[in-house]
Amino acid sequence: MPIQFTVRHELAGSAARLGRIVTARGTVDTPAFFPVGTQATVKTLTPDELLGLGAQAILANTYHLFLRPGPDLIERLGGLHRFMAWPRTLMTDSGGFQAFSLGLALEHGVGKIASMFPGAAAAPAQPIKKKLAKVSETGVEFASHLDGARRMLTPELSIRIQQQLGADLVVAFDECTSPLSSYEYTREALARTHRWELRSLDAWGAGHPGQGMYGIVQGGYYKDLRDESARFIAGLPFDGVAIGGSLGRSKSDMLEILEWVIPNLPVDRPRHLLGIGEPEDLFECVQRGIDTFDCVSPTRLARHGSLYTSTGRLNIKNAAYRSQTGPIEEGCGCYTCQTFDRAYLRHLFVAEEILGYRLATLHNLRFILDMMARIRRSIADESFLELKASFLAKYRKQRAA
Amino acid sequence: MPIQFTVRHELAGSAARLGRIVTARGTVDTPAFFPVGTQATVKTLTPDELLGLGAQAILANTYHLFLRPGPDLIERLGGLHRFMAWPRTLMTDSGGFQAFSLGLALEHGVGKIASMFPGAAAAPAQPIKKKLAKVSETGVEFASHLDGARRMLTPELSIRIQQQLGADLVVAFDECTSPLSSYEYTREALARTHRWELRSLDAWGAGHPGQGMYGIVQGGYYKDLRDESARFIAGLPFDGVAIGGSLGRSKSDMLEILEWVIPNLPVDRPRHLLGIGEPEDLFECVQRGIDTFDCVSPTRLARHGSLYTSTGRLNIKNAAYRSQTGPIEEGCGCYTCQTFDRAYLRHLFVAEEILGYRLATLHNLRFILDMMARIRRSIADESFLELKASFLAKYRKQRAA
Repeated sequence: MPIQFTVRHELAGSAARLGRIVTARGTVDTPAFFPVGTQATVKTLTPDELLGLGAQAILANTYHLFLRPGPDLIERLGGLHRFMAWPRTLMTDSGGFQAFSLGLALEHGVGKIASMFPGAAAAPAQPIKKKLAKVSETGVEFASHLDGARRMLTPELSIRIQQQLGADLVVAFDECTSPLSSYEYTREALARTHRWELRSLDAWGAGHPGQGMYGIVQGGYYKDLRDESARFIAGLPFDGVAIGGSLGRSKSDMLEILEWVIPNLPVDRPRHLLGIGEPEDLFECVQRGIDTFDCVSPTRLARHGSLYTSTGRLNIKNAAYRSQTGPIEEGCGCYTCQTFDRAYLRHLFVAEEILGYRLATLHNLRFILDMMARIRRSIADESFLELKASFLAKYRKQRAA
Repeated sequence: MPIQFTVRHELAGSAARLGRIVTARGTVDTPAFFPVGTQATVKTLTPDELLGLGAQAILANTYHLFLRPGPDLIERLGGLHRFMAWPRTLMTDSGGFQAFSLGLALEHGVGKIASMFPGAAAAPAQPIKKKLAKVSETGVEFASHLDGARRMLTPELSIRIQQQLGADLVVAFDECTSPLSSYEYTREALARTHRWELRSLDAWGAGHPGQGMYGIVQGGYYKDLRDESARFIAGLPFDGVAIGGSLGRSKSDMLEILEWVIPNLPVDRPRHLLGIGEPEDLFECVQRGIDTFDCVSPTRLARHGSLYTSTGRLNIKNAAYRSQTGPIEEGCGCYTCQTFDRAYLRHLFVAEEILGYRLATLHNLRFILDMMARIRRSIADESFLELKASFLAKYRKQRAA
C-alpha cells in the first residue's frame, strides 16, 4: 500500500473537501499547507518549532539538494528525514520548476517567476537573456546556480534523487513552461512532459509502502492542453496529482485553469497545487478542490518584514511601528505575538538581527497554518463559504503593505 | 538595599570563590558567564532559549542601544527587560569601550580590539587612522557607526541611559585606553576615568532597590596605575567592581593584571571582568577571584562555525565534516547535539542557512554555561584545580581550529 487518501467530507455545492492523507510518516489532514524547506531547512526554524506551529508536512526542493549537499550524501546519512530531523511527511518536487527558472524564465525575462528562484540573482555573471537550461527529449541540461557547472536532470534521475532523499510524496519529472510560451511550444512541451511522466512511473516502480508518487498536470493557460493533461494523468496509476507550471498571468487565469483541470481528476486522489500560498489563493483554490499546497511565500515575506494580519499584510520595517506596543496580530497564539511588541520586532529588522527573521517566520507560518485549520473546520461544519467571505472581507481592508 | 552579594565558599589556597548575587530580577550563582545581547538580542536566540541554556544574566551594550533604537523609546516601552522579554538579571556596560573601539583603537590600528567592534568594518568610509572619537574632560565625542553623526557620551548621560534601560547592574563611565597607549597617556586617562566615576556615582544617586552600580578599574598594563585604580574604586560606595580596559598584550599580561588588582578589592563585592570568555581564560580568571564575565566570543565564534568541544574548537565548515555523523560533542545536552549530525550542521553553514547560526550558538553557549556550572560545583567540593587541570589538558589537545 503506497499512501492512503480518504475524502472525509465534501462541502455541499462546491468542490471543496476535507480529506486525510496517510503516509509512512503520519497523517496529513487536508486541506493543508506545506512549508517549504528548500535546502533541507525551513528557513530560520527548527523541526520542533514547525511541529509546534502545526505543520503536518513540508516540501523540500530536489534541484537544490541535488546540487548541495547531494543525494548520495543524504542517503548515506539515513535520508532527508533523519538529515534534517523532520519526523513527519516530506514531499519533494521534481526539480523541473527550477530548470524552468534557470532557463526559460531568464530567457523570457519573466521577472516574477525568475525572482522566485533564489539563486537567480546570485548566479554566475551571465547575460540575463542567455539560455541557461536546454531541454531535450532526454531531460533538462542546466547551469548550476552555485558554480555554473553544466548538470542534467532526467525523469529517471529526478525519481532516483527523490528516492535517495526518502521522500514520502514524490513528484514526476516535468517541464514547466513560461506564461510567455506559445501554444505550439506549450503543446510540444506537454507531450514531452507526458512522456517524462511515463518514464517517471517506470523509474518509480512498484511497492513503496507509505510513499506515493504524484503525476503532474501541465499545459499552461490553454484549456485544451490542460484538459488533455488532466485526463492523461488521471488515467495513470499515480497516487496523487500535482498541478503545476504556468498558471496564466493573473489570479483569475489560475482559478480558470483549476476549473478546467479538477473536474477531469479522479476524486479519490489528493490534489496538490505547486507554489501557491497567499491567503486569498488558498481559500479560492480550496473551494475549487485543491487538497494541499506548498509555497515559499509566508517564509520569504517574513524575512522581508511583511507580516500577515487579519486585515492584510503589514511591513514591520515601516516607521509607523517604531514605538507601537501590542503584538503583530491581537489574539495570535504564536510565540512572537505572545512575547514581543511590534516596536521590538521593528527594531530587530532595522538592526538586521537574525532573531527578527525567526520571529517573523514563526508568525507568518502560524497565521497560514491556523488559517488552514479554520478552513478544515469550516468544511466539516459547512461554514466554509461564510468563513471565506468574512475572512477575505477583513483581510482585504489593508492590502497596501 | 541595592543588590546583595554573598560569598558562599572560598576555595582553599586560591582566590576562587563561590558566590551569589541577588538582583531585582533574580539570582546569579557565581562564577557566572553572561551572554552578550548587543542590540537587545543575544544574536539568533530567544529569551526562552537563553533560559533553557541556563543563562542567569545577560549583558547589553549601552552604546548600541543609545544609537538604536534609543533609550527614550525603550524607556517608554517599559524598559529593556520588557522590550526584549528578558526576565532575569540584565547588566549594561558604560559605552566607554565602544568609544575606545571607534576612536583610539582605529587610530592605533589595534586590529584585534578594533575587530571586536562589529560596527568598525561597516563604518562610513573613513581613513582607518582618522580619529573618530575625541576625549575631553566632559566625555567622549564620537562618530556614530550607523550614520557618521557626531554624538557624545558623558558619565551623566551613560548612567541616565542605563537607568532608562532599567539595567539591574550598571557600570560607571570610563575611558578604555589602548594597549599601545603610553604610560603618561594611560595615567592621564586613568585620572580622568576616576573623576568620571565620581560623576557616575553622583548621577546614579541612591536608593535603587535590587539594582547595583559597578565601579571600573582601569590603568592598562601598568602595575602602579592598576594598584591605584583598584584602591580608588575600593574606597567608593560601588556595589560591585568591573575590571576593564587594556589587559596587556597577552593572556599572561591579563592574568598579571588580575593579580595586581584583585588583592586590592573588597572581598564582599562581586567582581566582573569585561569582555573575556574563552574557556581557558574563564578557568584562569576564576582562580584569580573573578566572579562574573561577559563576552561575545562564544556567540560570535558560533556564527563563524567555530564550535567548542572538550578537545578544543572545531570549524564545522571544514570538508572533514562533510559526511560525519554524530553530534558536535558526544554527551552534550544541547538541542543541536541531541538532534543533528555534524554533516547537517556543516551543510547549513555551507548553504549559509540561518538555522546553522542558531544551532551553533545554542551549542557554544551551552558549552560555556555548562562549564561554568561545573566550575561552581568544583569550587563547592574543593575539586576546582583538578577540574581545571583535566579540562584544560583535554581542551588543548586540538587547538588548531
